[in-house]
Amino acid sequence: MNTIKIAPSILSADFSKLGEEIIEITKAGADMIHIDVMDGNFVPNISFGAPIMKSIRDKTDLIFDVHLMIEKPERYIDDFVKAGANMIVVHAESTVHLHRVIQQIKGHGLKAGVSLNPATPIEALKYIIGDLDMVLLMSVNPGFGGQKFITATVEKIKEV
Amino acid sequence: MNTIKIAPSILSADFSKLGEEIIEITKAGADMIHIDVMDGNFVPNISFGAPIMKSIRDKTDLIFDVHLMIEKPERYIDDFVKAGANMIVVHAESTVHLHRVIQQIKGHGLKAGVSLNPATPIEALKYIIGDLDMVLLMSVNPGFGGQKFITATVEKIKEV
Amino acid sequence: MNTIKIAPSILSADFSKLGEEIIEITKAGADMIHIDVMDGNFVPNISFGAPIMKSIRDKTDLIFDVHLMIEKPERYIDDFVKAGANMIVVHAESTVHLHRVIQQIKGHGLKAGVSLNPATPIEALKYIIGDLDMVLLMSVNPGFGGQKFITATVEKIKEV
Amino acid sequence: MNTIKIAPSILSADFSKLGEEIIEITKAGADMIHIDVMDGNFVPNISFGAPIMKSIRDKTDLIFDVHLMIEKPERYIDDFVKAGANMIVVHAESTVHLHRVIQQIKGHGLKAGVSLNPATPIEALKYIIGDLDMVLLMSVNPGFGGQKFITATVEKIKEV
Amino acid sequence: MNTIKIAPSILSADFSKLGEEIIEITKAGADMIHIDVMDGNFVPNISFGAPIMKSIRDKTDLIFDVHLMIEKPERYIDDFVKAGANMIVVHAESTVHLHRVIQQIKGHGLKAGVSLNPATPIEALKYIIGDLDMVLLMSVNPGFGGQKFITATVEKIKEV
Amino acid sequence: MNTIKIAPSILSADFSKLGEEIIEITKAGADMIHIDVMDGNFVPNISFGAPIMKSIRDKTDLIFDVHLMIEKPERYIDDFVKAGANMIVVHAESTVHLHRVIQQIKGHGLKAGVSLNPATPIEALKYIIGDLDMVLLMSVNPGFGGQKFITATVEKIKEV
Repeated sequence: MNTIKIAPSILSADFSKLGEEIIEITKAGADMIHIDVMDGNFVPNISFGAPIMKSIRDKTDLIFDVHLMIEKPERYIDDFVKAGANMIVVHAESTVHLHRVIQQIKGHGLKAGVSLNPATPIEALKYIIGDLDMVLLMSVNPGFGGQKFITATVEKIKEV
Repeated sequence: MNTIKIAPSILSADFSKLGEEIIEITKAGADMIHIDVMDGNFVPNISFGAPIMKSIRDKTDLIFDVHLMIEKPERYIDDFVKAGANMIVVHAESTVHLHRVIQQIKGHGLKAGVSLNPATPIEALKYIIGDLDMVLLMSVNPGFGGQKFITATVEKIKEV
Repeated sequence: MNTIKIAPSILSADFSKLGEEIIEITKAGADMIHIDVMDGNFVPNISFGAPIMKSIRDKTDLIFDVHLMIEKPERYIDDFVKAGANMIVVHAESTVHLHRVIQQIKGHGLKAGVSLNPATPIEALKYIIGDLDMVLLMSVNPGFGGQKFITATVEKIKEV
Repeated sequence: MNTIKIAPSILSADFSKLGEEIIEITKAGADMIHIDVMDGNFVPNISFGAPIMKSIRDKTDLIFDVHLMIEKPERYIDDFVKAGANMIVVHAESTVHLHRVIQQIKGHGLKAGVSLNPATPIEALKYIIGDLDMVLLMSVNPGFGGQKFITATVEKIKEV
Repeated sequence: MNTIKIAPSILSADFSKLGEEIIEITKAGADMIHIDVMDGNFVPNISFGAPIMKSIRDKTDLIFDVHLMIEKPERYIDDFVKAGANMIVVHAESTVHLHRVIQQIKGHGLKAGVSLNPATPIEALKYIIGDLDMVLLMSVNPGFGGQKFITATVEKIKEV
Repeated sequence: MNTIKIAPSILSADFSKLGEEIIEITKAGADMIHIDVMDGNFVPNISFGAPIMKSIRDKTDLIFDVHLMIEKPERYIDDFVKAGANMIVVHAESTVHLHRVIQQIKGHGLKAGVSLNPATPIEALKYIIGDLDMVLLMSVNPGFGGQKFITATVEKIKEV
């Protein structure tokens, strides 16, 4: 049975009291925290990186589901692992070494996922889906202003 | 007379309670807040961008002195102006249009500065210094781990 | 019923008397003017940009169908809108934000299209075709010398 | 009938006596020599380029099957032709002008192929397969350490 | 004695009747035509490339002084030589191989120059000035809107 | 007293019998071996990388003086250290983090140097020269064909 999971994005939190917000989200019964990392190159906005995520790691036991909207994410996987990520999702459009990045994430014992921009064909997942714990299909364009940040996620359970 | 100014970097703050930290820094008598923006491309680390800075803008009246360690900063000047910057410092190594970026910053009514990496010759400032309100000479390499973040700043007073 | 439309490319015009050529093309009964913009980066040739297109805008009432063979076309949509484009076609291979660029074009009230290089799979259009007014399938490699510039265009009529 | 062909990679040879190794490989009955060129940009390793390949060209009559793991291979096709390549395989992920590169290789009278990284969908070949003499499907990630270098090759015979 | 030379830029011409304009400029006694090539990457505007320049080559005997505001100009020198350039000026900020590009231009028998953006130190010319026929010091930022296009040129006479 | 040192480049060796050549060079009394690494991006040629250098490391006790003509050399310092480099020279034009790369090289206990392309001003060395063991001033353009590969090296002795 598929239960609905709630994963609020810290992008909608008040960054001036992030710790407090995380504690409230946890009490409110969220299932995980969605961490939107933007580098100003893959997407036209800089949000934040590993140091900020690390500052809230000890405020909750919830899973940190990190969505890397950055170019060549292979460069930063290790940083986010050290900062306390539990799952890392990378964009198929952001690297020519998608299979490699997924192995890199899983080699650290984390869950791994791939995200696709709205126009990217689902075929991009065909030869990697067997290795994924999550697929994140964007219904808006990440990092652009004036859009509501809604995402359609399709949980992929292995062996299914 | 040159008085010493104190400009603590928010990089050393606790990001889980940034608002609180900013209020304390203000009470402690700091003269401005130094905001270190890193994009993971110009420097090998992603710190944070305009949304986080904006979240603390109403917590203090102190000057926000924004140090952009990002590639082609001309792309993000307007975002940081909107988020409440008072002064923006860009790296001479990060753009081929240094003069233009400085005009762009000043065109918004902000103070403008240039920062130089440790090995960059001071000659890089020769034809722009007359337009600058601040020069920031890095004595460490920005964005790399295992270094103390000390910077030597040389305030440039116009007409002097 | 599909009628055949004639859209001569100004790349084959005499650029020394472009206004005159546009007037003749208009009299000859062309349905629109095809404007091939090349930046020397996405394709190995620089043709021309918005200022040249603007100089002929008042010489004809024909539709300007602009084919952007440039990297990250999202940077230049606004310029071409201001210069008088009626339809803008971008390359699927030139941006990771294809859906976003199409919205950007349509947000200005223009028609929008996507072009594919000869080897690019048609799957690249699957999740965007519903938003398109035109698909441009290249049968030659854009911007390379020694080739005839023939393109197979497939007009996409909405609701069909 | 499909016979199995043996194409040892010179990456596993002793580079201090490459000529000698090539002569031995030839005597041992290899069908061709597989030449893995890496530029440190498309893949995270620099192997070697045309000058080294050229130094062994006169040591054997075997076919040199060159696998270019480099960005924008269109820049280096001519160099590898001059250095004695018989077949050149490029990565679909390494260029937006895949069709063009294949024509460039074949225009020199060489055989041409396309290689796909493990996660790249086979659809990437759909509109180019008719022009190819070889398809090279990577079962490992090229240029990353700690992996065995095994490749699944699918020989494509024209008109079949 | 230094006489003042007049080199109108075709950027201020009416592109719809470029041939006519060139003929008038010639009759008016200009000494050369200044051709501003912009690629939308080195500067934030695409002007035009070699094909447009070529279309007016037979309209005048005046010297074509081509100012390349493009990234890695080494890629396009040969195109502009074929299209009828007499002198080519490249930006010091646009290439790491400045000495090489100057030799490439002069190897075709053309005059060669270097241009510097407003903030670029004159030291950039120190080891190349002996090879130059012209230095072009920008007093505005090339390719940005809302600026008058005035340039201070310093003719460099060899052996002086 | 300055004695002249002889450092033949392996670029002029016969790559088909590199080990043999290295042994001969050693017997002939060379003082070190100059290793020219080119990536096809910083310079327009791919020579070879760490694996080839490693294959000859046990053939001689001579110093390996590695000249990295590659973009962002900070990515590959560790590879060349592991492959047996004794001194690493990087190009000032190839990185914005020159000071950092030099510390990275020296942190491994190796000697470090900086190389300048022919037109690069010597001022580029001013704030780093105190940390360098060698300066390599190119008198030709690295990686371009049709040039003799002569370099003027200026040994820098510390405390002098």
